[in-house]
Amino acid sequence: MIISMLRGATPEQIEHVCDKIKSFGYSVHPIKGEERTVIGAIGDGKDKDRIISVMESVPGVESVIPILQPFKLVGRELKKGKTVIQMDGLTIGGDQFVVMAGPCSVEYREQILTTAEKVKAAGARILRGGAYKPRTSPYDFQGLEEEGLKLLAEARERTGLKIVTEIITTENIDLVNEYTDIFQVGARNMQNFALLKRLGRVKKPVLLKRGMMSTLKELLMSAEYIVSQGNPEVILCERGIRTFETYTRNTLDIAAVPALKQLSHLPVIVDPSHGTGKRSLIPPVSKAAVAVGADGLIVEVHPNPEEAFSDGQQSLLPEEFAAMMEGIGKYLDVEGKRL
Amino acid sequence: MIISMLRGATPEQIEHVCDKIKSFGYSVHPIKGEERTVIGAIGDGKDKDRIISVMESVPGVESVIPILQPFKLVGRELKKGKTVIQMDGLTIGGDQFVVMAGPCSVEYREQILTTAEKVKAAGARILRGGAYKPRTSPYDFQGLEEEGLKLLAEARERTGLKIVTEIITTENIDLVNEYTDIFQVGARNMQNFALLKRLGRVKKPVLLKRGMMSTLKELLMSAEYIVSQGNPEVILCERGIRTFETYTRNTLDIAAVPALKQLSHLPVIVDPSHGTGKRSLIPPVSKAAVAVGADGLIVEVHPNPEEAFSDGQQSLLPEEFAAMMEGIGKYLDVEGKRL
Amino acid sequence: MIISMLRGATPEQIEHVCDKIKSFGYSVHPIKGEERTVIGAIGDGKDKDRIISVMESVPGVESVIPILQPFKLVGRELKKGKTVIQMDGLTIGGDQFVVMAGPCSVEYREQILTTAEKVKAAGARILRGGAYKPRTSPYDFQGLEEEGLKLLAEARERTGLKIVTEIITTENIDLVNEYTDIFQVGARNMQNFALLKRLGRVKKPVLLKRGMMSTLKELLMSAEYIVSQGNPEVILCERGIRTFETYTRNTLDIAAVPALKQLSHLPVIVDPSHGTGKRSLIPPVSKAAVAVGADGLIVEVHPNPEEAFSDGQQSLLPEEFAAMMEGIGKYLDVEGKRL
Amino acid sequence: MIISMLRGATPEQIEHVCDKIKSFGYSVHPIKGEERTVIGAIGDGKDKDRIISVMESVPGVESVIPILQPFKLVGRELKKGKTVIQMDGLTIGGDQFVVMAGPCSVEYREQILTTAEKVKAAGARILRGGAYKPRTSPYDFQGLEEEGLKLLAEARERTGLKIVTEIITTENIDLVNEYTDIFQVGARNMQNFALLKRLGRVKKPVLLKRGMMSTLKELLMSAEYIVSQGNPEVILCERGIRTFETYTRNTLDIAAVPALKQLSHLPVIVDPSHGTGKRSLIPPVSKAAVAVGADGLIVEVHPNPEEAFSDGQQSLLPEEFAAMMEGIGKYLDVEGKRL
Repeated sequence: MIISMLRGATPEQIEHVCDKIKSFGYSVHPIKGEERTVIGAIGDGKDKDRIISVMESVPGVESVIPILQPFKLVGRELKKGKTVIQMDGLTIGGDQFVVMAGPCSVEYREQILTTAEKVKAAGARILRGGAYKPRTSPYDFQGLEEEGLKLLAEARERTGLKIVTEIITTENIDLVNEYTDIFQVGARNMQNFALLKRLGRVKKPVLLKRGMMSTLKELLMSAEYIVSQGNPEVILCERGIRTFETYTRNTLDIAAVPALKQLSHLPVIVDPSHGTGKRSLIPPVSKAAVAVGADGLIVEVHPNPEEAFSDGQQSLLPEEFAAMMEGIGKYLDVEGKRL
Repeated sequence: MIISMLRGATPEQIEHVCDKIKSFGYSVHPIKGEERTVIGAIGDGKDKDRIISVMESVPGVESVIPILQPFKLVGRELKKGKTVIQMDGLTIGGDQFVVMAGPCSVEYREQILTTAEKVKAAGARILRGGAYKPRTSPYDFQGLEEEGLKLLAEARERTGLKIVTEIITTENIDLVNEYTDIFQVGARNMQNFALLKRLGRVKKPVLLKRGMMSTLKELLMSAEYIVSQGNPEVILCERGIRTFETYTRNTLDIAAVPALKQLSHLPVIVDPSHGTGKRSLIPPVSKAAVAVGADGLIVEVHPNPEEAFSDGQQSLLPEEFAAMMEGIGKYLDVEGKRL
Repeated sequence: MIISMLRGATPEQIEHVCDKIKSFGYSVHPIKGEERTVIGAIGDGKDKDRIISVMESVPGVESVIPILQPFKLVGRELKKGKTVIQMDGLTIGGDQFVVMAGPCSVEYREQILTTAEKVKAAGARILRGGAYKPRTSPYDFQGLEEEGLKLLAEARERTGLKIVTEIITTENIDLVNEYTDIFQVGARNMQNFALLKRLGRVKKPVLLKRGMMSTLKELLMSAEYIVSQGNPEVILCERGIRTFETYTRNTLDIAAVPALKQLSHLPVIVDPSHGTGKRSLIPPVSKAAVAVGADGLIVEVHPNPEEAFSDGQQSLLPEEFAAMMEGIGKYLDVEGKRL
Repeated sequence: MIISMLRGATPEQIEHVCDKIKSFGYSVHPIKGEERTVIGAIGDGKDKDRIISVMESVPGVESVIPILQPFKLVGRELKKGKTVIQMDGLTIGGDQFVVMAGPCSVEYREQILTTAEKVKAAGARILRGGAYKPRTSPYDFQGLEEEGLKLLAEARERTGLKIVTEIITTENIDLVNEYTDIFQVGARNMQNFALLKRLGRVKKPVLLKRGMMSTLKELLMSAEYIVSQGNPEVILCERGIRTFETYTRNTLDIAAVPALKQLSHLPVIVDPSHGTGKRSLIPPVSKAAVAVGADGLIVEVHPNPEEAFSDGQQSLLPEEFAAMMEGIGKYLDVEGKRL
């Protein structure tokens, strides 16, 4: 790390800082400029965040600048290849472009079974559907809970699709684990560290959505929580961030996809439904996701958006979804990828 | 709610929308303008969010605008007076300005006992200190856990201060409940709805921090989660939001204090430590909090910030804290409030 | 517009509001709900913004919600087709995907001539290059001024490329007009209304970049300034907005492209250089721009980024640019568009 | 500056970077860590921004971190005291708390004269009023132009108040200079560098408003533009920044006041009208501005907000303004300041 001293820092303060750095087992490299002194500190990176915090509190210090990335296991520095998740012939992060589709919430049997069949016919490989819904208002529909999980499992049995569903509390992990193929962590729980730690000990992939006001580095640190507990199968998901723009529900950060791929070896998918919040914007943004190099999509599809319990305005009809899949198929051909 | 139709909406679409509204038991009030039709829908507000979501999905609809506030129990519309929380002679939300102070993390016995004595001497009434720490990195200090809670309890016994400490998962509620006087929900958990629901069933006040990405309405909806489960004692806390500005750690939204007080009857306090992230900015911002009408402060104080395990750069020394308390004392005199 | 009254508004207040609305020549449509009264106001939209502002100030009014879009000439409501700009066989906004490329700043003769030849060979149709640079610091390179314009003109003569260059003050319009084919308004000047008005009276297309702090509606209102003065040839440019994310220089709002096309008939292009600020992210984001339906790109290319006077880290080398153009060519084939 | 090399940077790349640094006349201080090499570069800071930009483009470089602040003349490093602006016995930046008040726009004679008298009676020392209005829509009221300036001058003559009014284009500087005492640069023009340069050559103070998405450093760089041209009398103004929160018009960044005062010797005032956009929030936020150490306020006051041509909902009535002034008076007594 680099410690920049205040312009008027005294020799005693500089010496105190150097001693402090050495006390952590770091080596000290002071650079005296005309206007101020800057000190390089080289060590093994252990306990780095605490040391930075300490050094920022030492008198005479203006700022402390870390040099190394804070994430290790999910970063590119230690692992050069890509993480490819294998699930019975389905691969996420390889040469397959995996589309996860289905309703925001599991609502009733007919709804989820019909949707499952239609999205499968159009090329989706994984069925999404919420059984536990994190809703802003306590008065909104909170999900069918275990009944919803059972309906998802029935849809899987009928169609052969895999299942992804959201987990919102550590207390439900065992129950959800009985049913799901992939655990989804929603944007609001991206920094629910108790939940992340527990998901680091399950044996199934985790789809980790970026928080609506989380940086890419924070997203990767949250992935690091899961991987550092022993579960290497994390799928990152860009789903839009919160900005001042209100025309779209969120601002989809398309450059996050190649940026995450440069920083990490984990697969990255895009959620154009939450990323835009508007049905008409989902198809063009989905094509952009293919173009930018994403490994897949997670899209909301509902057989009757007018009757949806949630998110109707950002759900595609099955026929709109099929048309969209055709559109992205041509791009996948260009890229040499398959659905 | 108001439904604005698209400019080119057909008479059939308009009729369909009207029928849809009536099917929810709402009355319909169409207003035909030269350029488009707008439809007023009046009902009892039940299931409102779902209805809005549905209506946004109906063909021909451009947008749906809710008229009523989404929160009820915490809002001003039903309860005109203020919520004043009583704790053995301490009152939060009344004519007392309550200062909560202490270290970011409970680290060791000497640290917490010394801090408790010093902040008490300076006028604080509640001791803060984290035993479970939500840290961005899995490699950072995660707190002393139950050992930390025991030290807090010891400090309470010695000083008579009340305790506030953070709860990060539903699984610890019973344990933390054995020790704490006030449960703190951190910014990252403001929309951890499973946690909020459980805290709605404890018999102690909850200090609810605004999420760094949360609007005032979302903060109030999260408070509504707690209150709607039976716990009316929620203290709101403005602690800065995330913006593009990086000079301060967060951007403290000072106008949020009077705005929340206009919208809600709940007490509102300010966290100038997280709100600024810089020790030198804490005293002026604390004075601003008094001036703007806050009911109290939560401030980080550490006897030796250089050695703090976390947040050293935003912790005051006990003597700095005492000086700050003197400064705000003069303002409290102007306002006719007491510490 | 819709006026929502406060819950406790008196009958006198409601009547006063109705009278006020009528005084503007609007018709009044009150809707009395159980909890509050909402009033529809229908008129010709003239002087609408002032009326909204007035109504928000009337006692008893909680909020005023406009129904109509504030832009007219650039909106879809009045003109259904697309604006296609013709320039000697080059068309912007039609079936051509127009790439504008060149250095951030014009620096010296060799630089601009070489770049022009190379970007032309790779398929660009328009040469970009700044002669007047709006720089954050007064101590940074401010551009070659007229000398730069002359070099651009020389490059045009040699290559047949059109020219686009930035205009930063009304005082230079006549001078820049002698040289350029397209006027560029930079992000920082998007709401320099004096400049926009003057550009509404030139006879050349204007490339209008979205401000880093501007909503889509504000961008369209700025375009409306130009068009309402008589110049219909405005090209909108998404170049990234400012958010909390610092990994990229800005957050490129990819959904803005189809959103703008739904709201307006004007052409929309993308600037992946400013939108990302990182050379390695430009090619994937450029492909995404094709996929999402943009009408073109504006990209920074420099023969020697290490020596660039500005923006070197977001400039492609000519050979990188050529490779990128090949990549997007395949997508254009899919879309049936040509360079 | 500090240059951090990529983890896998080759010895050749490191050597190339060192040579490059030396070519700018900087000395080189490489620090070889276990994981990567970091290079300190010490020089005179001349041409620093360009050098940073160049170094970021050199192969093998991961990032370049500047150490020195980019502003000089407005910074604390060169000038330790405070800038106090003297205007006929009025001082801005000293022990006086200067309140500027008046309508958003000058509308008609009676309006501005009445307002001037009333705000003077309540303790304001400077009259604000826009004659040229930068409005988002071309169809909104754009100001009375010179007629407005004349009315301001008449109000000055009658009351002895000083005048502050907005300048929106270089073309009007001479005209506005005939009338005004202080030039105001609005938020949308904070980076209109052509305008700033010209204002650096007038002999009157400039009130520089922070852009709604500008960092504190950018605000100071814009002040540096003015000061570096020869005009040292710049007053900084915090007026709220744009964030995701929509309840208030902007988010007033209260900590910006002490932060700017730590970074710069220039006076800092607060605009609670634009900072909140809501009349009821202006008085508490104004008190907070005193508490946090501001040197003054600029507040919108209108004798009849219902009839205001703009910003009615954020204008105080003269009697509300008088009540507010009384409230802040008590705080000024505590601070030992005078109106």
